[in-house]
Amino acid sequence: MMGYEDGDGEVLRHMIAAARAAGEIVRSAHSCRNAGRAEVSTKSNPQDLVTLTDLRSQREIFSRLRALYPSSVFVGEEDQTHDESWRSHSAAFIVDPVDGTTNFVHGLRDVAICIAFVRHGIPHVGVVYNPIQDTLYHGVRGQGAFRNALRIHVSGCTQLALALVCTEVGSARDPDSVRVITRVIGHLMEVQTIRGMRMLGSGALDLCYVADGTLDAVYAGVAREGWHIWDHAAASVIVHEAGGVLKTCRGEPFDIASKSVLCCASPQLAEALVRAIKSQI
Amino acid sequence: MMGYEDGDGEVLRHMIAAARAAGEIVRSAHSCRNAGRAEVSTKSNPQDLVTLTDLRSQREIFSRLRALYPSSVFVGEEDQTHDESWRSHSAAFIVDPVDGTTNFVHGLRDVAICIAFVRHGIPHVGVVYNPIQDTLYHGVRGQGAFRNALRIHVSGCTQLALALVCTEVGSARDPDSVRVITRVIGHLMEVQTIRGMRMLGSGALDLCYVADGTLDAVYAGVAREGWHIWDHAAASVIVHEAGGVLKTCRGEPFDIASKSVLCCASPQLAEALVRAIKSQI
Repeated sequence: MMGYEDGDGEVLRHMIAAARAAGEIVRSAHSCRNAGRAEVSTKSNPQDLVTLTDLRSQREIFSRLRALYPSSVFVGEEDQTHDESWRSHSAAFIVDPVDGTTNFVHGLRDVAICIAFVRHGIPHVGVVYNPIQDTLYHGVRGQGAFRNALRIHVSGCTQLALALVCTEVGSARDPDSVRVITRVIGHLMEVQTIRGMRMLGSGALDLCYVADGTLDAVYAGVAREGWHIWDHAAASVIVHEAGGVLKTCRGEPFDIASKSVLCCASPQLAEALVRAIKSQI
Repeated sequence: MMGYEDGDGEVLRHMIAAARAAGEIVRSAHSCRNAGRAEVSTKSNPQDLVTLTDLRSQREIFSRLRALYPSSVFVGEEDQTHDESWRSHSAAFIVDPVDGTTNFVHGLRDVAICIAFVRHGIPHVGVVYNPIQDTLYHGVRGQGAFRNALRIHVSGCTQLALALVCTEVGSARDPDSVRVITRVIGHLMEVQTIRGMRMLGSGALDLCYVADGTLDAVYAGVAREGWHIWDHAAASVIVHEAGGVLKTCRGEPFDIASKSVLCCASPQLAEALVRAIKSQI
């Protein structure tokens, strides 16, 4: 029997098919004017949104992949599974059915379906699909990163003063978190004189934009460390294979369970950004 | 002879044709991978970029409209014209050939060509065209606002806690400006508990996203008041016709020469946002 070890290509094809099927659900809901705002409800707080479309998208992906890989572990944002069996299992799928839910709810275009295939805790295949733009990013461990099937690379930018930097403030609203978040932004603008600052609303696509050379750096979770495994498992393969550097915001080694993420187009830029952030937290 | 007073529709058609022609120039440059980064130079400081494409786009628009309206006043970002004759002249065109130049340089998709037709200082027709997405916004005074020829309206959101708020930090890097900018962001997150914060990189498209109900509020220029007439002349017609409220960040009446702008989906939201900003500056 062929194990997953030899079958990354086959898993990739099924993951892409599942992402595109879920993409139909997300795209048709997105095109209904204000459908998102109508169907929204909240999770942990009023800034943390979930919609019927998130749930439908996850169901579509899980049912397709479970039929093909019934003995795998499945972890999805909408399950809020706290099971850690993906760390040791030989085959786990980690799914964010709609990354950028607030963008989706409001009709902004940066929305993504993320599926990662993880073996023994290491992501091997990542698919990040933006159904609104019909842009598909994928990466396979050791085999490169691609956007719509064309090979992509990071920009290679090494200086913060030339860097377009993206962050996400997420749903943190407590005074301590907000103080740290705004201190870091102020320091990057004033002291590091970065070229520009963006907040685009989808953490997974932010990482893909570093992978394809659009952004030079992304960081999130400086304060509350609010990132989850489904937010970056898939995109981490893509950015790694595109030559990007991944760490936590404190410069620690990154793994997909890290609660904060820092992603840069070069080791020099990552070092400079970690130093800048650590000076403010 | 038919004056411009009766000819807004005809002027609109010529403005759209000019914007689409310039759009070809911008789109072909955008699709060349990293063409933008290769051709970039800086203006007042390293964060203020200008490219050959900005200059070519402006030349295309000016030459087309000058041939049709030779006695009009023309104001363009790349001329840096400080002539104020547009205030009194019966026909002036105000042009931003590439709004969101940093986005253009880095390959982000929020890039716009802006053309406003102004009579005696009042904008009557506005065209904002995103050539990357092929999305065309237009507004005609008294006749509504449109995206790809379909009527658009603001969201009507009245509460900051439900609002997706966008700002742009622009090229300000001095300590006083940065302090004010980050104080306002912190206050909106912590005290007003806004739903989300975005920085998308094109001031004109930010206003159009309020016009079509995607964003609920936009503000820029809280500190250095760095906005220019070409940044919002065209979009101001569109957002006004879509039911949006325009003020300065201090709540003063807005005109197209205002150096700061605050744009909201309802009068209640504008009042709340002005109050929030004024509490921090």
